Amino acid sequence: MSADTARSSLPADAVDAHGLPFAPSRSVLRPLGIADLTIDGGVWADMQNLNASTMIEHAQSWMERLGWIGNFDAAVEGRLPQDRTGREFSDSEIYKLLEAIAWEYGRTGDAAMDERFRALATRVAAAQEADGYLNTMFGRPGQQPRYSDLEWGHELYCFGHLIQAGVARARTVGADDAFVQVVRRAADHVCREFGPDGNQGVCGHPEIEPALVELYRATGDRRYLDQARLFVERRGHGVLGEIWFGPQYFQDDVPVREATVMNGHAVRANYLAAGAADLAVETDDGELLGAVTRQMVNTLARRTYITGGMGAHHEGESFGQDFELPPDRAYSETCAGIGSIMVNQRLLLATGEARFADAVERALYNVVLTAPAEDGRGFYYTNTLHQRTPGHVPAADELSPRAASSLRAPWYAVSCCPSNLTRTFASLGAYLATHDDDGVQIHQFAESTVRARLRQGDVVLKLRTRYPADGRIEVEVLDTPSAPWTLKLRVPSWAHGATLTSEGRRNDVEAGTYAAARRGFTAGDVVVLDLPLHARWSYADPRVDAVRGQVAVERGPVVMCAESVDLGTDVSGLQVYTSEPPVEEDGDVYVRARVIDLAEPKEWPFGREPGTGVVTGVEERGLVRLVPYHSWANRGPSTMRVWMPVVG
Amino acid sequence: MSADTARSSLPADAVDAHGLPFAPSRSVLRPLGIADLTIDGGVWADMQNLNASTMIEHAQSWMERLGWIGNFDAAVEGRLPQDRTGREFSDSEIYKLLEAIAWEYGRTGDAAMDERFRALATRVAAAQEADGYLNTMFGRPGQQPRYSDLEWGHELYCFGHLIQAGVARARTVGADDAFVQVVRRAADHVCREFGPDGNQGVCGHPEIEPALVELYRATGDRRYLDQARLFVERRGHGVLGEIWFGPQYFQDDVPVREATVMNGHAVRANYLAAGAADLAVETDDGELLGAVTRQMVNTLARRTYITGGMGAHHEGESFGQDFELPPDRAYSETCAGIGSIMVNQRLLLATGEARFADAVERALYNVVLTAPAEDGRGFYYTNTLHQRTPGHVPAADELSPRAASSLRAPWYAVSCCPSNLTRTFASLGAYLATHDDDGVQIHQFAESTVRARLRQGDVVLKLRTRYPADGRIEVEVLDTPSAPWTLKLRVPSWAHGATLTSEGRRNDVEAGTYAAARRGFTAGDVVVLDLPLHARWSYADPRVDAVRGQVAVERGPVVMCAESVDLGTDVSGLQVYTSEPPVEEDGDVYVRARVIDLAEPKEWPFGREPGTGVVTGVEERGLVRLVPYHSWANRGPSTMRVWMPVVG
Repeated sequence: MSADTARSSLPADAVDAHGLPFAPSRSVLRPLGIADLTIDGGVWADMQNLNASTMIEHAQSWMERLGWIGNFDAAVEGRLPQDRTGREFSDSEIYKLLEAIAWEYGRTGDAAMDERFRALATRVAAAQEADGYLNTMFGRPGQQPRYSDLEWGHELYCFGHLIQAGVARARTVGADDAFVQVVRRAADHVCREFGPDGNQGVCGHPEIEPALVELYRATGDRRYLDQARLFVERRGHGVLGEIWFGPQYFQDDVPVREATVMNGHAVRANYLAAGAADLAVETDDGELLGAVTRQMVNTLARRTYITGGMGAHHEGESFGQDFELPPDRAYSETCAGIGSIMVNQRLLLATGEARFADAVERALYNVVLTAPAEDGRGFYYTNTLHQRTPGHVPAADELSPRAASSLRAPWYAVSCCPSNLTRTFASLGAYLATHDDDGVQIHQFAESTVRARLRQGDVVLKLRTRYPADGRIEVEVLDTPSAPWTLKLRVPSWAHGATLTSEGRRNDVEAGTYAAARRGFTAGDVVVLDLPLHARWSYADPRVDAVRGQVAVERGPVVMCAESVDLGTDVSGLQVYTSEPPVEEDGDVYVRARVIDLAEPKEWPFGREPGTGVVTGVEERGLVRLVPYHSWANRGPSTMRVWMPVVG
Repeated sequence: MSADTARSSLPADAVDAHGLPFAPSRSVLRPLGIADLTIDGGVWADMQNLNASTMIEHAQSWMERLGWIGNFDAAVEGRLPQDRTGREFSDSEIYKLLEAIAWEYGRTGDAAMDERFRALATRVAAAQEADGYLNTMFGRPGQQPRYSDLEWGHELYCFGHLIQAGVARARTVGADDAFVQVVRRAADHVCREFGPDGNQGVCGHPEIEPALVELYRATGDRRYLDQARLFVERRGHGVLGEIWFGPQYFQDDVPVREATVMNGHAVRANYLAAGAADLAVETDDGELLGAVTRQMVNTLARRTYITGGMGAHHEGESFGQDFELPPDRAYSETCAGIGSIMVNQRLLLATGEARFADAVERALYNVVLTAPAEDGRGFYYTNTLHQRTPGHVPAADELSPRAASSLRAPWYAVSCCPSNLTRTFASLGAYLATHDDDGVQIHQFAESTVRARLRQGDVVLKLRTRYPADGRIEVEVLDTPSAPWTLKLRVPSWAHGATLTSEGRRNDVEAGTYAAARRGFTAGDVVVLDLPLHARWSYADPRVDAVRGQVAVERGPVVMCAESVDLGTDVSGLQVYTSEPPVEEDGDVYVRARVIDLAEPKEWPFGREPGTGVVTGVEERGLVRLVPYHSWANRGPSTMRVWMPVVG
């Protein structure tokens, strides 16, 4: 056996309970835990390593420096509210970081990560009150009373992230861990306080819902599931108070069971949908699962950027109307991309449909991969698709206002996205593959090792690929039972002309489905999926008015963009010729283009003829290089566009 | 003499002091007061009549019903803060209404308006404190201290509108009026509090600046001018505290003297520019006037909708970047349109350049005229250029959230726009014409009577026109001195091929300038300006990405739009043929068009071919009717678009 397979023996209980970021007790596909999947190379391994080496420490040091962690110490020492720093939801950042550290320890077994977790968790736990309540913002003399501001207070949201950190700990070191007990006391408090006979409210920001379902799954305690159901079902009936943005902002206008498309704040909408999907699966509620599926399908069809990003409005960080997808005002919050991945992965598990894995991949490569700086010390909060003026580079010690930075910023006053990225990267393995009674399904392609305990016996697979640079994915069977089972590989919806080679036979496979090889495998067998991975033009539905007369380029799952650095001038004059496909050379992508010279703006920008007095010259440029959208601005401030005007 | 000229004798002091909404003591062109200009017919006379008969009463009854006026009574009766209603700036709505009523009385001499003014002013005045301070939101036990929240408190903003009401009163009934004394005491308080040795702050919302300059003009008291200068010069140096939106929101990032284009909150930016222009004129500060001119020219060239609307972002109600003008997310607040008119009229007076009068006209016909409902009982707050789904019709007693209504709403929680419209309509005459040492300039065309006291003697003119339905403007000289003087008429920038007929000679005149007739006129002389007023295609600068591949139609100063009511279907499938000009028939405008049938959205709206699987049919429609944008939704909820995709 090669070094690749050194970890091929299955850890005890790895499949059933350990390392699972999401663990539905029933579903079409069953998840594998982070202990079952190791990413051995490629861009996602790089991201996991960067997360482990830098991002987690970077996030923790900012939280320390700004006093967000110190708030817990201040609570213990009776220095609240006077010494409190940060926004009302800053506790949740520590919890998301704890979750990341828990997964990271589970992923690598790095004792330093365990030590980091314990040290941080101890400070958090010390601030828990006798009845299980835990929040540095509310309830003390001089603070607002507990639950006095469900609309904006984020108390249950913070509990939700606390619980998720506890679930991560339970699934990596076990449910006996001291922090898991802290979390259970907190969850018990929530159930007492908001139970059938208690406070009939919900939180302005969903998150407690999926968290409680996961805690039910991790502990078997049904109260948590019942409480999640109460929160999901109460919402949408105007149960929260009036706010400036209206009830749609926090999905309190329409019950989730009745909604047909996502509305309002994009992160809130996705987190709620994740919780509703979890609830539906656990309670075998086909109507509710159908509602979430319908919402996501419609949201993908009408309200999602080509990058997979969600949220067309800066105002309210919210979804726009159908087809309202302005590239230059894309909010596309990093957290909304992560929320979309959460929901789509749940729908993938629940339905087994490839389209949801497609959506996960799109958001991974074009939102999650876009957000972090190459050095792991900066992050996008919003992810615009068109940068009109070169952005401001924040200094290394500069705290950026939310969403104001057009370049990756070290930290934000509202810094939900960096910590969300850390927990996503640490648990990323779980998104790659699943299993069912019949075999193993590969959803995302990376140099990786996959271990699954099938009915037939244990399977270990080694994936070798340079994807997405290259479309060839080679799966070697390292260990297998002798009984037949099925290996499925996703054929992305763009991969027309893909083939699967198995037992020396090469067969065409259909895009947007799973290619299957079923047989009695033997160790050493190799199955190869070949995806025709060429740069291609992508056009928008004519109802997407904001990109009319424009075209984008995608290569496999990667959205490309034009950047001023490559153009030698601002991107506002770029026009591309679409009569031939984009050109690929030495791994780079080029389009034939020209640049129109534009006069300094005249007195009035509207006139009788298109371009009269404005276009002062045309420069043919031949082939112009595009770069992956996720790498934009890595070479410094630039202007950039994903959608490029077509000559004509 | 005809009935038209019944008011042709000049009221005493009308030119020098009375009825002038803005009264620079030096300028290239000198304003005429509302007593000097009467609008005798046409759409603006209708609006003035609707304002007098309905809008003012409508606004006042809402302010009464919501307790905003009652706040002043509550202040007197010691019932604050517990009985206070409305937002922190609600006092200003009463002041804007008082200003409207003052102009309305000055315009018509209607005694009931005078009575209305006195009754309302008495309630306001009663709440003034001994030191001149007047605000129902601050300073009492249980309220925040005075000037403790300059960023959001709007105290000086409220004083600004109070002062403008006082100026209107001074210029219509005289400076001895009791209310003018209230206003002077308030202004004196502001000068004491914020003078050279006082509080070095400014208001988060500019307005006090132009108000203080006008009060200086109305009273001759230079302290007010000096105080205005302090406010203008202090700003832009980060003098206000940090806010979520950043200092650009309230123009505190760059001194107005250095700014090159308007930024941040569009109403704030325009009000500040108005004050800076006033200050520049009074202090003969060419640098400052140049700065304001440069800002407005650049803002018109890069950041203004074809309607003249300003503000491309809902977030922060703010300007976008250059050429960022999404039709479907146009904020284009009614108040920003009014603010733009305030600034452009000031620059017109200061420079005599036609382009500023063009900008005034554009905003008048496409923002100010768009906002009110036909019955005067509803108003747009924002003015979108593309309505994607039919809007909600608010009930007659329904208070709408700011900007949330996509149809004209009776009233808003933040209701700055309706009261701003009332004062604009009541003083509208002043925007029509000016005079200088050499004669009279006609800037806006309406059935009207213009009286001017020239150096050579008194002039009375009667304008007869059906403009903008028709391009013929006939000016009859009713009264004139025998000495020569010059009559100038603006030739709008779109009016290529215009002619001026004077003394029987018809001459070509240049668009974007003033056509001049200079001679010794005699009563009965007629000068005719013929503007070629045809519906025309309008194209955007290629940098306005949001309307690429689309075209608009304008007819004279009026922007047209396509509405679903005329199309019989949603406007999202509309495509127009631009090979022939728009067609006019019986006063209506038509374009040749087709409608593409669009399938229900598929799973993903981006694909390899434009329209594949989406466009399911094409229906040629022949000629499709357009309607003036300002009349959209008058036939009920609809979808609408100003920019129409071009077939191709």
